Amino acid sequence: MDALPDFEQILDAAARIAPYASVTPVLRSAALDALSGAELHFKCENLQRGGAFKFRGACNAVWSLDDAQAARGVVTHSSGNHGNALALAAATRGIAAHVVVPEGAVRAKLAAIERAGATLHRCAPTQAAREAMCAEVQRATGAELVHPYADSRVMAGQGTLALELARQAPGLDALVTPVGGGGLASGVAIAAHGLDPALTLFAAEPLGADDAAQSLMQGARVTTVVPDTICDGLRALVGKHNLDALHMHRVEVITVSDAETVAAMRLLWSELKQVVEVSSATVLAAILKQPRRFAGKRVGMVLTGGNVDLDALPW
Amino acid sequence: MDALPDFEQILDAAARIAPYASVTPVLRSAALDALSGAELHFKCENLQRGGAFKFRGACNAVWSLDDAQAARGVVTHSSGNHGNALALAAATRGIAAHVVVPEGAVRAKLAAIERAGATLHRCAPTQAAREAMCAEVQRATGAELVHPYADSRVMAGQGTLALELARQAPGLDALVTPVGGGGLASGVAIAAHGLDPALTLFAAEPLGADDAAQSLMQGARVTTVVPDTICDGLRALVGKHNLDALHMHRVEVITVSDAETVAAMRLLWSELKQVVEVSSATVLAAILKQPRRFAGKRVGMVLTGGNVDLDALPW
Repeated sequence: MDALPDFEQILDAAARIAPYASVTPVLRSAALDALSGAELHFKCENLQRGGAFKFRGACNAVWSLDDAQAARGVVTHSSGNHGNALALAAATRGIAAHVVVPEGAVRAKLAAIERAGATLHRCAPTQAAREAMCAEVQRATGAELVHPYADSRVMAGQGTLALELARQAPGLDALVTPVGGGGLASGVAIAAHGLDPALTLFAAEPLGADDAAQSLMQGARVTTVVPDTICDGLRALVGKHNLDALHMHRVEVITVSDAETVAAMRLLWSELKQVVEVSSATVLAAILKQPRRFAGKRVGMVLTGGNVDLDALPW
Repeated sequence: MDALPDFEQILDAAARIAPYASVTPVLRSAALDALSGAELHFKCENLQRGGAFKFRGACNAVWSLDDAQAARGVVTHSSGNHGNALALAAATRGIAAHVVVPEGAVRAKLAAIERAGATLHRCAPTQAAREAMCAEVQRATGAELVHPYADSRVMAGQGTLALELARQAPGLDALVTPVGGGGLASGVAIAAHGLDPALTLFAAEPLGADDAAQSLMQGARVTTVVPDTICDGLRALVGKHNLDALHMHRVEVITVSDAETVAAMRLLWSELKQVVEVSSATVLAAILKQPRRFAGKRVGMVLTGGNVDLDALPW
């Protein structure tokens, strides 16, 4: 399940999730076009079910299971958007979802996951403890692991947004997504190049978690980066196969500082009028940091999510 | 110009502004549907040009002028969304816009009006001073007055959003707009009943500026209310003809407290992921206050604007 999906599998995913996922709108802003010197088309996955693109991948994984697998449920470790998305996706099929969450996770996020009907399993806040707890739940229940990004079903699901965007904003010159674990960036790369191999692909990455940039530069996966960024959705190290996809599809990484990202987030709120989380704003920060790369171009920008603590805005 | 437009004039306005105004999306939220017990269709005028529905009316007024009138420009008094909208609308025709603003108006709003190319004229912060300054600009320049709501061209322009909404969300049972001066509520009432006389119309009004509610209850225009509400877009007293339209179209006013409105605003940000101004949230506050009136109904909700000071959120 951790190999890469092909274009056909992304088309299959689009058909599979169509009854459940939203076709999110593409919004524009004259002010942001003027500021960037480019023609920006924002794919608003903050308006996706669950408030993030993650529902696409989780939904594709859940509906890819055969009936016997489905009856045993699904499990993942994530206190963020993927955990919530898997809970919502499992509910569309009426199956059990188990979500392993570290002690200290944000209570509001856990409450949302429980409201969606999932069972929470708490563990110590380390990668080893998460994986051990996941394995234990798998043993006890037979539930299928749905990894947040190292899963071809998940990558295929995330890639479906590029198919939609191509219909909604035809003839794009470039496409920018954030990159964390790389489930989105890899799925979108395969989907976008399946439709138009000439499209130029970019990934925006926080400077404080720039393992994808380092890995592509060195030609080998760098796993020594200790993430230090405000972008909580982009702290994961890019997966092995995800990285392969970025390499094969010549995705260029643009790194941005947290200050640049927060300034871009504010612009998305004030000009595009969208509540987006800070990780989403990396794509606008990247464009504004390297405007000459995008001048006069028609650019697709993926806004990944809108689950924000309104009492703790970063400005 | 202060009579009421008829349905034909609203159809004409729609054709007139089509090259300049955005067809704003209609968004939904499963969480807000669950919370309200109704099926809510949010018409997102926060995504209109200039960040508010006001562009529709201003644009219709500007493009209704003959060439000789247009050459002399337009004038209004407003430090808020209407002033900005008139400046943007005048720019689409390449004509002069004069905006009379009271001393003490928010600097960011004035800067936006100037960026749109309008000339600011400052006056004392009283209604009399505003009107005197407006008259002076009219005398000096021959500019055409475009009143924020007591103007049939403006009402017709605002009404166009109801035509769009009816196409985007057919078969609505009810429609809720905020009411301040009544340009929006009256234009929408005429347009909506032109298409479907059976539609039930509601207007949400702040308790601290409930002159429309009082006026409809007493059968005569009440002008003694001294507005005291956080909803800066809804402090104007309802205009005479605007009130006539509310009466004729049996618009029912639901009053809401500022606390109810702020809570609803927060829900629109967190669940619908839209940056909307506080005045916009009155419509959701009204639904949540009287849920039995709307239970199981398919309801259109007009979100009027998204021009917010992100450094001064009301929670």
